[in-house]
Amino acid sequence: MIYADNAATTRMSQSAIAAMLPYMDKLYGNPSSLYAFGQQAKEALEDARARIAACLGCEAREITFTSGGSEADNQAILSAAAAGEKQGKKHIISTAFEHHAVLHTLKKLEKQGFAVTLLDVHENGIVAPEQVAQAIREDTCLVTVMYANNEIGTVQPIREIGAVCREKGVLFHTDAVQAVGHIPVDMGADNVDMLSLSAHKFHGPKGIGVLAAKRGTRLVSLIEGGAQERGKRAGTENIPAIMGMAAALEEAVRNLDANAQKLYAMRDTLIDGLSAIPHCILNGDSTRRLPGNVNFCFEGIEGESLLLLLDDRGVAASSGSACTSGSLDPSHVLLAIGRPHEIAHGSLRLTLSEDNTQDDVQTIITAVREVVSYLRSMSPVWRSLMQGKQNFILK
Amino acid sequence: MIYADNAATTRMSQSAIAAMLPYMDKLYGNPSSLYAFGQQAKEALEDARARIAACLGCEAREITFTSGGSEADNQAILSAAAAGEKQGKKHIISTAFEHHAVLHTLKKLEKQGFAVTLLDVHENGIVAPEQVAQAIREDTCLVTVMYANNEIGTVQPIREIGAVCREKGVLFHTDAVQAVGHIPVDMGADNVDMLSLSAHKFHGPKGIGVLAAKRGTRLVSLIEGGAQERGKRAGTENIPAIMGMAAALEEAVRNLDANAQKLYAMRDTLIDGLSAIPHCILNGDSTRRLPGNVNFCFEGIEGESLLLLLDDRGVAASSGSACTSGSLDPSHVLLAIGRPHEIAHGSLRLTLSEDNTQDDVQTIITAVREVVSYLRSMSPVWRSLMQGKQNFILK
Repeated sequence: MIYADNAATTRMSQSAIAAMLPYMDKLYGNPSSLYAFGQQAKEALEDARARIAACLGCEAREITFTSGGSEADNQAILSAAAAGEKQGKKHIISTAFEHHAVLHTLKKLEKQGFAVTLLDVHENGIVAPEQVAQAIREDTCLVTVMYANNEIGTVQPIREIGAVCREKGVLFHTDAVQAVGHIPVDMGADNVDMLSLSAHKFHGPKGIGVLAAKRGTRLVSLIEGGAQERGKRAGTENIPAIMGMAAALEEAVRNLDANAQKLYAMRDTLIDGLSAIPHCILNGDSTRRLPGNVNFCFEGIEGESLLLLLDDRGVAASSGSACTSGSLDPSHVLLAIGRPHEIAHGSLRLTLSEDNTQDDVQTIITAVREVVSYLRSMSPVWRSLMQGKQNFILK
Repeated sequence: MIYADNAATTRMSQSAIAAMLPYMDKLYGNPSSLYAFGQQAKEALEDARARIAACLGCEAREITFTSGGSEADNQAILSAAAAGEKQGKKHIISTAFEHHAVLHTLKKLEKQGFAVTLLDVHENGIVAPEQVAQAIREDTCLVTVMYANNEIGTVQPIREIGAVCREKGVLFHTDAVQAVGHIPVDMGADNVDMLSLSAHKFHGPKGIGVLAAKRGTRLVSLIEGGAQERGKRAGTENIPAIMGMAAALEEAVRNLDANAQKLYAMRDTLIDGLSAIPHCILNGDSTRRLPGNVNFCFEGIEGESLLLLLDDRGVAASSGSACTSGSLDPSHVLLAIGRPHEIAHGSLRLTLSEDNTQDDVQTIITAVREVVSYLRSMSPVWRSLMQGKQNFILK
């Protein structure tokens, strides 16, 4: 199998697994316990916290461990909203193509009387810092813009958006789940106040993530109980997963440049190869996108059939976010960049990792070409397009 | 080291680790993905769900995976409160010695206008079903009583309390974090509507738990985002941990009787041995308690010094809940069973697992006796008790 769905989840690296194992059946103490065996776990926890902070450009005490990216997104936004509400500020700025962990939390806040402005992301899938500047109001308590989109991989001008927020004194959160470990991220240099990440997106374990929040940012607790994580996140710390995450993140950051170079080359070969298919379009900016992300729409076919036939040929790919793949609705991301419904339904996301090879890429290109041809040969829509009974949307 | 703090956390079993590993770097697919590699993960997930349900006496679809016991407790209580509020029912019944994951969530609800009745747990640490019956009002939307206490190990008459709730038509939740895998638990027979558990308390992985909720119980989502867990808990499913939990639970349930027999014998030897120390008292009912739980107060000493000196002698023990061990406040559990402050400060919790031996128990008895003697020989309080300047509280 050629696994080309690394935005959904990744294979755990051997070093991440090796970092977890000792904490399962040997150093399994509870870090809240006073005896040496517990304090050993506590030291490991704090060491991991410091190493993760170093990778993110923040301080160790700014790291709160969560069960993953969704929890971190929820906590960041609800915290900013709670702080805003106390000051009578109930306006939040975000974009139309955020992950549902952000959008659904914003929906919840709208029901509580918050106003939400979702910025246009244009056809290229990029928000301009000026849009943020223009949208900020007196009562804006939060700007939340994802670092890189999970479907089309476009990378936002986070540093510039952060500068706008800092200048206007508005809290800035970024969902960096797809960015961390793949492109350089530095909370300090990027002017970011809060950042969410998920370990299983960079070869770390599932079920663990981080909400990094600059000192002075008030966090509300989603999970009440024990005093773990300075009272901001109750529950026994998941030390094995935290150790695995720290190892995976360090490895990803250490190899980031080398991996990115390899991935950029594979990505662009893949984009070139698929662009040759008639009546298709690349989704998202062609260069300001994640190193491993390729996302196309093909006219006249259904994304789901495409995936299943690619699967038969040993290629694991996606039509968009795994989190919504049971749904029949077209991707909100593709609608946000202006793709019409009938085109958005024919989408294909291929997300490579450094485990992939140029041979994989060639195999994928051939498989996609053949499968698209085959599906079109079966498609009534395609037939009516070819017969001129309806017009092509894509050139 | 003799590890005697299994209520804080446990060593992962080899079968639980073995069940996790393949899902880390081989079958690592995202269960929401459509391709076979994702669907394989989905099948594993649903198989684990069914196996866990079978261990709990509920249906597979009644299982929601959470990041642990605290999250499950929070979600259960907030769900019942949300449902209650819609019907104008804003009264909740619980007990004074619940885990903080329950008590702090109830505090949060009190701020939102809910009334909370905390039942007395008596000196033996047991709630009577009649107390629950008497406390139920027209506007009661939830009764939440822990299956077994995490500090003193007392086991509540859950089945009888459940019967009272069922008769009165009130939702019944039990925090079964300390019970599952240690004593028989069956949601059906026990008349339980919602149950929380945490895998790392029965030799499973940290960072994973279950909220089991009978069909028809409306759950609110604490974490918004993707449509995982039927929309009740967003975030990529933590398949490796879920597989580890299923294996650990099956193993614990399979060996439950044999382990319990072994533990009851060790527990009672330990209770007998420590009871011989002058001026001490067993906390909690002597028989209606978890198989591995021993909890004593010793007059005239501080629990923290006791723990540290036991640690020096290779015994890892606790004064109470690990979740609050940084705190200087006396245990709310010991206060709830009527121990005065000065006695509650001198507590020792020893929680055995089937890994322990009768030799361990003898070593612990000797160590505790010697350490208590030594600490008393250094204690001004003890001196003034011995000189008759103040009176002993404990015989």
